Amino acid sequence: MKVVITGGTGFVGLRLARRLLEKGSVQNPEGQAAEIDEILLFDQVEPPARPEGLDERVRIVAGDISDRDTVFGLVDRDDISVFHLASVVSGGGEKDFDLAMRVNLHGGLNVFEACRARVSQPRVVFASSIAVFGGAGMPDSVGDNTKQTPQTTYGITKTICELLVNDYTRKGFLDGRSARLPTVIIRPGKPNLAASSFVSGVFREPLNGVDFVLPVRPETVMPLLGYRAIVDGILALHEVPGEDLGDDRAVSLPSLTVTVADMMDALYRVAGDRTLGKIAVEPDPFIEAICASWAQDAYFDRATALGLPREDSLDEIVSYYIEDYLS
Amino acid sequence: MKVVITGGTGFVGLRLARRLLEKGSVQNPEGQAAEIDEILLFDQVEPPARPEGLDERVRIVAGDISDRDTVFGLVDRDDISVFHLASVVSGGGEKDFDLAMRVNLHGGLNVFEACRARVSQPRVVFASSIAVFGGAGMPDSVGDNTKQTPQTTYGITKTICELLVNDYTRKGFLDGRSARLPTVIIRPGKPNLAASSFVSGVFREPLNGVDFVLPVRPETVMPLLGYRAIVDGILALHEVPGEDLGDDRAVSLPSLTVTVADMMDALYRVAGDRTLGKIAVEPDPFIEAICASWAQDAYFDRATALGLPREDSLDEIVSYYIEDYLS
Repeated sequence: MKVVITGGTGFVGLRLARRLLEKGSVQNPEGQAAEIDEILLFDQVEPPARPEGLDERVRIVAGDISDRDTVFGLVDRDDISVFHLASVVSGGGEKDFDLAMRVNLHGGLNVFEACRARVSQPRVVFASSIAVFGGAGMPDSVGDNTKQTPQTTYGITKTICELLVNDYTRKGFLDGRSARLPTVIIRPGKPNLAASSFVSGVFREPLNGVDFVLPVRPETVMPLLGYRAIVDGILALHEVPGEDLGDDRAVSLPSLTVTVADMMDALYRVAGDRTLGKIAVEPDPFIEAICASWAQDAYFDRATALGLPREDSLDEIVSYYIEDYLS
Repeated sequence: MKVVITGGTGFVGLRLARRLLEKGSVQNPEGQAAEIDEILLFDQVEPPARPEGLDERVRIVAGDISDRDTVFGLVDRDDISVFHLASVVSGGGEKDFDLAMRVNLHGGLNVFEACRARVSQPRVVFASSIAVFGGAGMPDSVGDNTKQTPQTTYGITKTICELLVNDYTRKGFLDGRSARLPTVIIRPGKPNLAASSFVSGVFREPLNGVDFVLPVRPETVMPLLGYRAIVDGILALHEVPGEDLGDDRAVSLPSLTVTVADMMDALYRVAGDRTLGKIAVEPDPFIEAICASWAQDAYFDRATALGLPREDSLDEIVSYYIEDYLS
């Protein structure tokens, strides 16, 4: 069994690869557990050094996901699964519309077409986002029955790919699933162009002893989840039998609805006697406008029924981060 | 002012062109009434003879809507409006997935990109369809707040174009509106590949003295509307000020919810002493399966508030057809 992860050298991609190495097998297109002999991490650039925790089963390939031949070259076996994580992020998509269309829409089409070209109907897990919801008509709580009228190009292209996953699956071209991710915390390393980048930064920078400027008000509310439950949720969705998913293959992952003030409280509670960087509040209209267009709360009863996991609290998420990255 | 109608030599396109000629003006990108000096009907093939009722303002151009340069060549002025009606129909899309993607998705993208290339933010009316609704989770009545999980490639591509119209409008690239059409009756001429073709046929063929085989059960329910109100609704949506539409530019047009038995009753009532062809019922599983995936009822309060019209009854629709095509 070969596993392709697009956006594979990103934070979620690498954690997913390491979990797959630990597990050693995933279900093949026939729904039977099959040993993984190759994990291909595809991304736009090669990392400067080989990331830690990868063994000889892992190959890293750099290229342009909007190039059809490149993507067809990745999906070169019938015993294959694809986790399609590659994406221009929300803030980046607002700043470069054409790039978001090329990577998110045409890149997605290339992945789905490459899988369609196999005879085996490969399983495909597409990483969608809670940013598929938005607009004046958005209800207080969003989920699998909510109309999708996103107000970012990122959200529009994610919605379009959810629709394509449904139709490619209905036609029998592949066996697709869309995992609709809430905001993922706590991302290590540097801030990225996502408008939600601060949600990790507000934990990470103070824990690293660095002062942090919070670009939104502390009462800002959002649904989020820790990276461990996100990665396990993506994997669990891959393993669900297709017939349990019905005709709408897009599933909102579980989440915790919290305020930014709740996040800071959890940080101070769990940090113990660590010396923390200071947090200053300086709202940024660009970031606040994007956040205001997002969902305030989310429901996820289908995900729960399918057995997809969730951390119990922010405290648990903060302690995992300290364990994984600071110990 | 130039008006481009894609799919312009089709039934709805030609009726729309004639109404525009009668009116003589439409709102320009600045929202002021402007005289129409050219109507360009774009379609895949040139009609064998010039259709009736067109004057020297009308030009007909044949070409491939999936060719970017062709479409950019049509949108060659800033004082321009586009009615994007060109589409592979529902049954045709189920039989040829790639053609539906090429015409409906990539053709739509070409139209939106060509309008974006103008500095004037042209008004664009995209003809969407009630086929954007479907699936196991579809409620009894569908409308502007209903989640879109269509179960045909036609419905998927229509939903995607609605999303693109919203995003291109939000970005200020154009001033878009999607008119979500119910089934349009009574189409004259020959049956087409639409799975809903029988809904016109059940009136048209008996009125022409031709026997008709009905491929669905008489108790089949669907929302529909006559071509006069459809064309007037598309035109009215073009004239609505953009700010009245908010951030979701897709509007379900008004409709009448009726059974096929209601249609036959109206036919017999309005036909008077005409000799009618006989109707035999022979359900076709392919057609019935597609119909079963469609909405049974529809609401349209936004369209009503915007002043979009509706015929009052099937009887009115049948009498218009007799007046327009049989008198």
